[in-house]
Amino acid sequence: MSLEPIKFENNKLILIDQRKLPTEETYCSYDTLIECHDGIRDMVVRGAPAIGFTAIYGMALWLKNHKSFTESELMDAGKILISARPTAVNLEFEVNRIIKLINSEKKTGNKNLYEFVKQYGDNEIVESEKKHRKIAELAMQDLDTIYGPRQLNLLTHCNTGYLACGSLGTALGIINHLHDNNRVKHVYADETRPYLQGSRLTAFELVKANIPHHIVVEGAASFLMSNHKVDAIFVGADRIVANGDTANKVGTSNLAIIAKNYGIPFYVAAPVSSFDTETISGKDIHIEMRPEAEITNYKNHRIAPYESSALNPSFDVTESKFITGIICEKGIIKAPYEVNLKQVINS
Amino acid sequence: MSLEPIKFENNKLILIDQRKLPTEETYCSYDTLIECHDGIRDMVVRGAPAIGFTAIYGMALWLKNHKSFTESELMDAGKILISARPTAVNLEFEVNRIIKLINSEKKTGNKNLYEFVKQYGDNEIVESEKKHRKIAELAMQDLDTIYGPRQLNLLTHCNTGYLACGSLGTALGIINHLHDNNRVKHVYADETRPYLQGSRLTAFELVKANIPHHIVVEGAASFLMSNHKVDAIFVGADRIVANGDTANKVGTSNLAIIAKNYGIPFYVAAPVSSFDTETISGKDIHIEMRPEAEITNYKNHRIAPYESSALNPSFDVTESKFITGIICEKGIIKAPYEVNLKQVINS
Repeated sequence: MSLEPIKFENNKLILIDQRKLPTEETYCSYDTLIECHDGIRDMVVRGAPAIGFTAIYGMALWLKNHKSFTESELMDAGKILISARPTAVNLEFEVNRIIKLINSEKKTGNKNLYEFVKQYGDNEIVESEKKHRKIAELAMQDLDTIYGPRQLNLLTHCNTGYLACGSLGTALGIINHLHDNNRVKHVYADETRPYLQGSRLTAFELVKANIPHHIVVEGAASFLMSNHKVDAIFVGADRIVANGDTANKVGTSNLAIIAKNYGIPFYVAAPVSSFDTETISGKDIHIEMRPEAEITNYKNHRIAPYESSALNPSFDVTESKFITGIICEKGIIKAPYEVNLKQVINS
Repeated sequence: MSLEPIKFENNKLILIDQRKLPTEETYCSYDTLIECHDGIRDMVVRGAPAIGFTAIYGMALWLKNHKSFTESELMDAGKILISARPTAVNLEFEVNRIIKLINSEKKTGNKNLYEFVKQYGDNEIVESEKKHRKIAELAMQDLDTIYGPRQLNLLTHCNTGYLACGSLGTALGIINHLHDNNRVKHVYADETRPYLQGSRLTAFELVKANIPHHIVVEGAASFLMSNHKVDAIFVGADRIVANGDTANKVGTSNLAIIAKNYGIPFYVAAPVSSFDTETISGKDIHIEMRPEAEITNYKNHRIAPYESSALNPSFDVTESKFITGIICEKGIIKAPYEVNLKQVINS
């Protein structure tokens, strides 16, 4: 990784300020839970895994400043963090998990809970990076079986690198790993409307890693694929259900359908924690609508007529029949997904 | 039409200022050729047909101010207009056609060439609107055979209405006509990156016509179609070749492939003048690359890292196998295109 977006050192949490990227690389330093809350709320940090790590270190900082506390004080501290992004289910889940862990560790008589939680956060980042590394290795192996050892043209969507994940990353982690192994010829990064994670964040990571790339509009997908500019596509996942259907950033399903038409391998990359095998099919995934201003405005500048509305689905569902392989740290899952997905996940 | 984007009255050309749309509706008034040149150069007017009409009236204004002139002076006037958009092949073609017409009319002894060219411009707009009206009627007939008389959800890409065409318009002309006949339930307008013709211009026309609509990002296509929000798709065309392959604004081919996957009718609408039967296949169409700043910047604000490049193909080619029908003023062309296209065009 060319850069550490989340780092805990000298008793402080250091976050790269993602709001200022890509044109300014600045860092924020936090030594209280309240500051971590503000950082999450103000979008200094984004991406479910990165927010999760910030929450862990936020609790560690609270413990540093509260040598003794009641269970209800601990709960209140957790609530403060959760309130930073009240709709982020993942944040709430992560905070509740740490609180449980702290309570159980406290019962064992551990007097240095701050150190314990800080260490837990460090381990989580290391473990996460190991998973991403494994995913990247599996992806490279699969590409080898198709293309042999030649350099490849790749396409990716949204941002799935260390800025979102805290560590290496999933789809973009694969691209980084391929580049480290001299296997990348060129990368096309979808700008990823409306929030432009591709232009801003993926492009930033590609620049930092010296990976040759072009930013493209989502509309250019068929142009690129029909002109033989794409050998494989890698995307991340917000949720993968039992039949392999995958919810991810809006535009992902477009890419998968177009790739299938041109016979181009389309891969989803995600750790096992993104799988939800309780849900049978993508039809059961509810898609959240985001604020229309993301489409009708650029920052404070109005693009569209004031009388126009926009529909802004945050995700779409890619049917598994369009997916060449779903890569997790336990292996690559291929069709028939109904059978193979549970087999790999439970292995 | 709810608005006249190009109008010649009181010896002046009146153009709606498309640079200020959609948040400001202002008009520019021109009474010299030089002013028309500036208007084309400064993008007050855009869209090949609309630029063509502006060129005709520009020549009319020149004739108003030059009661007698040599052939070489006339040629120089034409060159000024052409220089306004040196890469617009269509503009050069249109100017050369008017010069030819003026020369031949001058030879007949017509003393009021200004009136003649002005009248020619007016007629061209009327004829163009007739063609668009015919296209719209044919489209409605074809939808009737599929859906009967019910109200429909429609999707369109880029801007193909009166702002681009001077008169009714092609794909958006169809939508306007359907709306006049109470056949439109809802319209989804692609914002159309990078230049945002959809958010800015199509949305403006939809607002003016009181057509219920949402602006969407291109990435939302599969989401919309898989959720049964689209009954038919209408797009324009920059060039349609002998086998029906169609060059149009980048992103069009994506839509056609995705529509085919979901079994949704996908129509191309264009007057016969957009057909190029000399070219056999879409593979022979050269795609122009536009400035990358359209993607990396929003107005003067940098979005992407300074070190990143963007690839900005202006068009893509939609293979005719994905097109349900190509609608021109002479009829609807359906597969097999190799046979039917020439038959309809030459009828």
